[in-house]
Amino acid sequence: MEHKIKSALNVMEGVEQPAQINTELVKRLHSKKSKTLTSGEYLDGIFGGNRTLLSKAITLIESSLPKDQEIARQIIDGCLKKKQKSEFNQSISKSVNQSICSAPSSIRIGITGVPGVGKSTFIEALGTYLTRQGHKLAVLAIDPSSTRSKGSILGDKTRMEALSAEPNAFIRPSPSAGSLGGVARKTRETIILCEAAGFDIIFVETVGVGQSETTVHSMVDFFLLLMLAGAGDELQGIKRGIIEMADVILINKADGDNLNKAKAARVEYANALHLFPPASSGWQPVVDICSAQSLFGIDHVWEIIMDYYAITTENGFFHRRRMEQNKQIMLETIEAGLHQHFFSRKDISAKLHRIDQEIRNGLLNPYSAAQEMLEQYFRKE
Amino acid sequence: MEHKIKSALNVMEGVEQPAQINTELVKRLHSKKSKTLTSGEYLDGIFGGNRTLLSKAITLIESSLPKDQEIARQIIDGCLKKKQKSEFNQSISKSVNQSICSAPSSIRIGITGVPGVGKSTFIEALGTYLTRQGHKLAVLAIDPSSTRSKGSILGDKTRMEALSAEPNAFIRPSPSAGSLGGVARKTRETIILCEAAGFDIIFVETVGVGQSETTVHSMVDFFLLLMLAGAGDELQGIKRGIIEMADVILINKADGDNLNKAKAARVEYANALHLFPPASSGWQPVVDICSAQSLFGIDHVWEIIMDYYAITTENGFFHRRRMEQNKQIMLETIEAGLHQHFFSRKDISAKLHRIDQEIRNGLLNPYSAAQEMLEQYFRKE
Repeated sequence: MEHKIKSALNVMEGVEQPAQINTELVKRLHSKKSKTLTSGEYLDGIFGGNRTLLSKAITLIESSLPKDQEIARQIIDGCLKKKQKSEFNQSISKSVNQSICSAPSSIRIGITGVPGVGKSTFIEALGTYLTRQGHKLAVLAIDPSSTRSKGSILGDKTRMEALSAEPNAFIRPSPSAGSLGGVARKTRETIILCEAAGFDIIFVETVGVGQSETTVHSMVDFFLLLMLAGAGDELQGIKRGIIEMADVILINKADGDNLNKAKAARVEYANALHLFPPASSGWQPVVDICSAQSLFGIDHVWEIIMDYYAITTENGFFHRRRMEQNKQIMLETIEAGLHQHFFSRKDISAKLHRIDQEIRNGLLNPYSAAQEMLEQYFRKE
Repeated sequence: MEHKIKSALNVMEGVEQPAQINTELVKRLHSKKSKTLTSGEYLDGIFGGNRTLLSKAITLIESSLPKDQEIARQIIDGCLKKKQKSEFNQSISKSVNQSICSAPSSIRIGITGVPGVGKSTFIEALGTYLTRQGHKLAVLAIDPSSTRSKGSILGDKTRMEALSAEPNAFIRPSPSAGSLGGVARKTRETIILCEAAGFDIIFVETVGVGQSETTVHSMVDFFLLLMLAGAGDELQGIKRGIIEMADVILINKADGDNLNKAKAARVEYANALHLFPPASSGWQPVVDICSAQSLFGIDHVWEIIMDYYAITTENGFFHRRRMEQNKQIMLETIEAGLHQHFFSRKDISAKLHRIDQEIRNGLLNPYSAAQEMLEQYFRKE
């Protein structure tokens, strides 16, 4: 395992410029044996900007098969090592007195708002604006949807037809897994891969008004909330907690007859925001209006985000927040590791089967059952 | 510890009828030493229907102090043992050929709908209707709200003034903890306590349109979705997954000018529901209209719920679902136990402190950090 990572790193060494994918690799990719690619080959493809290999690597991240997970872990590791190396190179070129806090090479933007607010159109408008300026944009989504249908309402790539035709854009629907935690972990890892593939702007989209907003907020640098004028806050289902997280509140559909209503809403929200305590970012949240349909205000949205970037990289908040998020990732990875160790033990899964029957027959309450399982686990080890 | 539970159980033996709380206990409760009550005394109070002790016991459940958690565990254990005993007594009076599947002594009802749909008014209307029929009703809530303000928008008891004045009603706001998982665990335990205190109907209310619905669905027998006519599904932010979970969809505010719109919406939703695959419960979800304001249709809502109860207890689904939920509780309790064991180890917390610094300084990526922590944990044990 370790030598594979090392060989992957050897491949990486020479890859500062997008690499030419060799013909052999392309052949294997299209052959039936494409599943036998090594992590080094995946990394080679990702660093070289190969979309097909990036997509396949993300599929490995989303897989629940142990062998896929193992290779996914090697790929993530390789991407992180490349990042660390390039950040280190950047930082040593700075003053030695400065702490290791290089300028980040990407910005991660969370985008939320209830269905009907025009999120897809907005992402398409801002996304196309950015890719045509030469930015490389990855659009990801978090949508821990229906436990019954297992489907993802953000899965429909065709929603963003114009954007998906842009060569600089990469659109990936939400992983359709069960728990929010699982979906979040996969999306975090996907961000790492996309950044390693050279995407400098990451959108993470989410729907609904609940816990998934908090999750997206925990993995982005900037949080953008789309709203509508006149629809009534209550009906829009926007909770105070989500407004508090927003770095910008954008009143969308500010066009035609709706323009004046949008302007009035801007004043109202701006007044409301002043009631919140100042954020630790040193950034005063902004309220603005735009129309994703007519493209009015879209360029200004980007100016706001760049203002935020300038202020928070200057005062160190941007870096601190990412490190804070990294700590969170570590804790979640530990939880996942503990879980896996427990459930992969043979005696545990055997006992679990028996105890499950007892619970079903009402012979054991779930708290005592858990206690019994934990005692077995810790006794035998 | 064990003898405490035993003494608690001894106290319970004689308590099939609500017990008279002895004067000594009341005195201690009101004295400064009230915190030194034993789990037996709490159980005595809960089984006797003492509201103050029930509330205090729930506060222990919500506490994060180890000593509170220990006594909370004993209280939950006592409540579960009482339940098991009474269910066993019920089941042995039945045919011996029947499996241990006694008639449940409570029904747990999840209630959701976006803000503005009239949830509080509805709960007050249905709740007052039930308590006046002699039912004992506990109203709980799940609202993993703002990570910044830590507040709970369901915390305002005064919302339901009439209901909270009913002697048969017990209203408890959402525990205001961080993670949805933590909030859910506490609410599940609170349900156990409320049922042990003789509440036969439990409402679990939730807000928003996201993961918290799935969580509430996982702890109730019946799921009720409130909607409005004419507001547009999109703006109401109701996701397909939530509609799929509903056992009844109630179009609220069916009064005055709105009545005809509500009737039209009922037809529309009923048609839509037929497109879903039949549920494993053998129950065909119902769409109905009501007005929590004018009380129109409130009695019929209860008839629907009782129909559901009759069908699903008859075909065994009601029991199977609870056992399924119990398995989930066991798995979550195991996760919590693994977490606690890990983080309470001295060498782990020391190492965590050091590794945290390295992450902050960008010297270590979070995945490698987690790996290091896990290796230390499993090596030393």
